[in-house]
Amino acid sequence: MSVLVMKFGGTSVGTTDRIKRAAKRVGREVANGHDVIVIVSAMSGKTNELVGWVDETSPLYDAREYDAVVSSGENVTAGLMALTLQEMDIPARSWQGWQVPLKTNGAHGAARIESIPTANLDARFADGMKVAVVAGFQGISPEGRITTLGRGGSDTTAVAFAAAFGAMRCDIYTDVDGVYTTDPRITSKARKLDRIAFEEMLELASLGAKVLQTRSVELAMRYKVKLRVLSSFDEYDETAGTLVCGEDEIMENNVVAGVAYSRDEAKMTLISVADRPGIAAAIFGPLAEAGVNVDMIVQNISEEGRTDMTFSCPVDQVKRAAKAMEDAKQRGEINYHDLVADTEVSKVSVVGIGMRSHAGVAARMFKALRDENVNIKVITTSEIKISVLIDRKYMELAVQALHDAFELEKAR
Amino acid sequence: MSVLVMKFGGTSVGTTDRIKRAAKRVGREVANGHDVIVIVSAMSGKTNELVGWVDETSPLYDAREYDAVVSSGENVTAGLMALTLQEMDIPARSWQGWQVPLKTNGAHGAARIESIPTANLDARFADGMKVAVVAGFQGISPEGRITTLGRGGSDTTAVAFAAAFGAMRCDIYTDVDGVYTTDPRITSKARKLDRIAFEEMLELASLGAKVLQTRSVELAMRYKVKLRVLSSFDEYDETAGTLVCGEDEIMENNVVAGVAYSRDEAKMTLISVADRPGIAAAIFGPLAEAGVNVDMIVQNISEEGRTDMTFSCPVDQVKRAAKAMEDAKQRGEINYHDLVADTEVSKVSVVGIGMRSHAGVAARMFKALRDENVNIKVITTSEIKISVLIDRKYMELAVQALHDAFELEKAR
Repeated sequence: MSVLVMKFGGTSVGTTDRIKRAAKRVGREVANGHDVIVIVSAMSGKTNELVGWVDETSPLYDAREYDAVVSSGENVTAGLMALTLQEMDIPARSWQGWQVPLKTNGAHGAARIESIPTANLDARFADGMKVAVVAGFQGISPEGRITTLGRGGSDTTAVAFAAAFGAMRCDIYTDVDGVYTTDPRITSKARKLDRIAFEEMLELASLGAKVLQTRSVELAMRYKVKLRVLSSFDEYDETAGTLVCGEDEIMENNVVAGVAYSRDEAKMTLISVADRPGIAAAIFGPLAEAGVNVDMIVQNISEEGRTDMTFSCPVDQVKRAAKAMEDAKQRGEINYHDLVADTEVSKVSVVGIGMRSHAGVAARMFKALRDENVNIKVITTSEIKISVLIDRKYMELAVQALHDAFELEKAR
Repeated sequence: MSVLVMKFGGTSVGTTDRIKRAAKRVGREVANGHDVIVIVSAMSGKTNELVGWVDETSPLYDAREYDAVVSSGENVTAGLMALTLQEMDIPARSWQGWQVPLKTNGAHGAARIESIPTANLDARFADGMKVAVVAGFQGISPEGRITTLGRGGSDTTAVAFAAAFGAMRCDIYTDVDGVYTTDPRITSKARKLDRIAFEEMLELASLGAKVLQTRSVELAMRYKVKLRVLSSFDEYDETAGTLVCGEDEIMENNVVAGVAYSRDEAKMTLISVADRPGIAAAIFGPLAEAGVNVDMIVQNISEEGRTDMTFSCPVDQVKRAAKAMEDAKQRGEINYHDLVADTEVSKVSVVGIGMRSHAGVAARMFKALRDENVNIKVITTSEIKISVLIDRKYMELAVQALHDAFELEKAR
């Protein structure tokens, strides 16, 4: 018997009527002969209500109690979904994290999954249960306390179940209909991708963040879980959504899969830093401690024994970064002439596993930007991605130009 | 270390501010040197919201899933109460039913408590925990599914914990300030009782239903748990509320503790029933099967070989009772001349453990009613209670007259 995992997000189960609509999709898969594990989020708005009460109660809350309170939203949906399926004469049963049990470490609020023993659910499946409805986002710690998995926890739950049960696929139902070549709000030529490789999905995080949490994609990649992202509001179709899969399952590749962007970036340059071994650690250590998410890093030689160090970070972390540098200078750990911040930049990236086997992608990218008179401030590359920092006012233009240059409107 | 159990109902924990007020009462008991077990209900309105969703989903719901959904309300309050106590620097921890574990049978929706192992909480108390906040109304079945205890479940949870932990007392905080000699809406002379015996409390169910569920009083009586009922809205006072306790702890007794009433009763008489062995079973068997709550029963001999059988039941069950009798007659199981229903009667009762040792209570009662020209239609007695059926229009008058006759306005 092949197991299918289906995950429904908060908006997909936001009312009892929406739960019924989701249950119909589950029913179709049961009719197709699958045993189904359904992972549910809390009804939309419910988690916020619970978090609001916790905030009213205790601003610096104990994460163990936060988890005990907040996990209850998913339990409600799980029970209601099981009842809805039973109304459709489908043998279904709800499972809370501790009942499965989904075992995690003790990092409350951001717990990591350690194991999902399959015995309990397998026994019930063997006994005639067709659907196990599992409350997402939660598990149980070694101390027997309820844990939650943090941001994207329900997606991660779904992938972890798919891995543990060797599921044929993990379908993530959400409020968008798949992964696009770029943001459709920036160019109407943006096209839904039928398939995308795990590595590409990870690099397209800025596009994909609203679709799939990075953590769940990493897990799917590690355990080779086929992930499908699709809308719970569209009519059903075998080819609906986007399949996130191993690159060996993607037959024809465009060189580039998509164009990603990150609007609110800042470029910071430490001018005339003493160039000595360990200087990078002396700079980026304090930044990390201050919670600054440093992204791109470029080092230029400026004069004998001195260098300029440039890095990018989110625009709202500029003050924090500047203070961390100033403090390090006061402590005598680093020495620099000036700190220059450019807070009017954006990052634009092209991503594609095809880059590994195709030369000239960078040249094509730079030419497209030059043709639009877009000046490039910083460049970084990885094996399957090229990113540039540019003035923010050109961001949309750059995304459109690159989408055209790599002909992403054409089917892959 | 003496353990104290404190239970807060839904209105007492209806908002985060009310939870803070309740937590202050808990804090005072901790300062008094007690380890405290707090039992909480769901925030008022929350259980109804959850039940509403279940009803929308599945009119004939699976009780296992109903329990999984509905129990989540208490879990939320337990976490919020633990957080509130922690904010007051009191070491507190929340416990859901399965974590304690509170073990029940598998009768979902109306489960019976089977045992409460104390090891887990004892270990935490020994470790420095001062307050265990337990989600009321819920437990875990032998199959590892969540169960709920049904009506009055949180009171029952509180008493069961008090019994299991040998608590010095079980304080039930609610929205009334104690048990009264009678309903204060009927006579302003009604007086709050400082103490009442378990047996009296059970007999005063019609007064006490809003205060304490019968089931929790029965449990308290069996395990000799001292129960105190008090208002969570009044200022604190050592003598607040009413203590429900063993009769040996009540030093001075009025003969009568209180006057109870049940307004909407009906008196039904089967005229001229064939009087033979087994006739009572032939009548009351079908009534029980039809779900009629028969209360008082009187049998009069009317003529040779025939009898009149009179019983009382709630007025809204008259049609059901009449149909059950008609059906039994059709089946030839009973034979009667006529069925006469008087739907304009009420029951008034005087209750007191002092009746055991004092004669003349009935005479005093009947005299008081006669002095007001109240005609008595049916009389029944138990060891500590005398009940009469009277015309409904005299009900308030009768309650006032009896309250005066037994001088209940005076302290016991």
